[in-house]
Amino acid sequence: MLELSSNQWQLIYNTFSFGLISMLACTVYTLVSQSRVLPKYRNALVLSSMVTFIAGYHYIRIFDSFKGSSDGFKVMTTGAGSFNEAYRYVDWLLTVPLLLVEVVAVLALAKAASSSLITRLVPAAAAMIALGYPGEVSADDGTKILFGVLSTIPFLYILYVLFVELGKSLERQPEGVAATISRLRLLLIATWGVYPISYLFPLLNITGTDSFMYRQVGYTIADVLAKCVFGLTIMKIARMKSAAEGMADSH
Amino acid sequence: MLELSSNQWQLIYNTFSFGLISMLACTVYTLVSQSRVLPKYRNALVLSSMVTFIAGYHYIRIFDSFKGSSDGFKVMTTGAGSFNEAYRYVDWLLTVPLLLVEVVAVLALAKAASSSLITRLVPAAAAMIALGYPGEVSADDGTKILFGVLSTIPFLYILYVLFVELGKSLERQPEGVAATISRLRLLLIATWGVYPISYLFPLLNITGTDSFMYRQVGYTIADVLAKCVFGLTIMKIARMKSAAEGMADSH
Repeated sequence: MLELSSNQWQLIYNTFSFGLISMLACTVYTLVSQSRVLPKYRNALVLSSMVTFIAGYHYIRIFDSFKGSSDGFKVMTTGAGSFNEAYRYVDWLLTVPLLLVEVVAVLALAKAASSSLITRLVPAAAAMIALGYPGEVSADDGTKILFGVLSTIPFLYILYVLFVELGKSLERQPEGVAATISRLRLLLIATWGVYPISYLFPLLNITGTDSFMYRQVGYTIADVLAKCVFGLTIMKIARMKSAAEGMADSH
Repeated sequence: MLELSSNQWQLIYNTFSFGLISMLACTVYTLVSQSRVLPKYRNALVLSSMVTFIAGYHYIRIFDSFKGSSDGFKVMTTGAGSFNEAYRYVDWLLTVPLLLVEVVAVLALAKAASSSLITRLVPAAAAMIALGYPGEVSADDGTKILFGVLSTIPFLYILYVLFVELGKSLERQPEGVAATISRLRLLLIATWGVYPISYLFPLLNITGTDSFMYRQVGYTIADVLAKCVFGLTIMKIARMKSAAEGMADSH
């Protein structure tokens, strides 16, 4: 049992609700805005809708799980009926590879170039998430460090692909688009940076209720940035490219 | 525990239900009416749908929270399982910036002019809401006044941008549109005026169950005016502008 203060409990509760509705509103927005970009960019928008739809589902579950595992402001974190942290990992296992496919899709590269990027990014993203989970749930520092390091290897490989391989194709993008894609990569890295920071709290001696609160609030804000703000940036890029390719500006 | 009379309790309960379905009905209406305006005005309509969708979600939660925190006509306002007032602030944090983007979107200004307005209005709106919350939840009059004043600063800045900056672009709008946009601004200010009035009840010695009832009913009516009536006015403006630009009237 984790005895939160009433402020800690309410902050987490309201942050989950904020994450939930942000994901759902973003899903509807990107779904109904398809016609504002050229057909070749619509798949990137649909992928963004899928990411926020999957995340919206998981936030409904996380919200209910938090409520269901609470007795007053006490939260059960182990045993039957405890708060289910694993929803996040199931979510990331699905959404993180999709987010990377979304970036490749909005570039609208030649088929061979885009297949080559996807076949390298997707397995690396899945490996990164799968290797992070044993570290998160372990109470042993050695195991945490081991899986933290293992999960960093595919992360570095993803950075290499995004900055070196994908960087080459940025030169051929219309004016303004390359700069926005660079900002998108930075957003991705800045938000992904939040996940291991929360993961390392026990190692930094931030423990107990503080660690739990910072982790839940930090993960949720990072998710909203990495999925909603990310998706809206993808939409902006798709609209810039559509306009550069002669689509009449529909605002 | 707040011991409401049965009339007070039922008025609040039914007002929440009224707010809930007004938001959802408005969401569906603006979503399915897209084709009645020119493509360049559709984003303003979609933004209105998003505002009422987000608000509809929060009214479902507020309604359930009111029911769940009631024992007969007694409402728990502090402690575990109490009525969650914070849903409103999470709602406003998302919807108030979106409402301002909606006004800018329906003007269909040149890209630079509209970006400039949005980058000033959105952070000001977020600051206004975020600074209002500590005052609302504080039981101390000094803190209430402090955050009331702090939150008024970005509010005045928003008024300046809406009346002085945005006023300039009204001259270039077709006949009738400028007058409707002026009415829209007045609607926005009149409804926003309700929020601080309720906020100041404790300072005006309106306390206990009366304060709670006026606040809940006042906020809900203000929300319906500022989101549903506002969204329908945005739609009217979009239709007037579409007609002025030669769209065949489809009624």
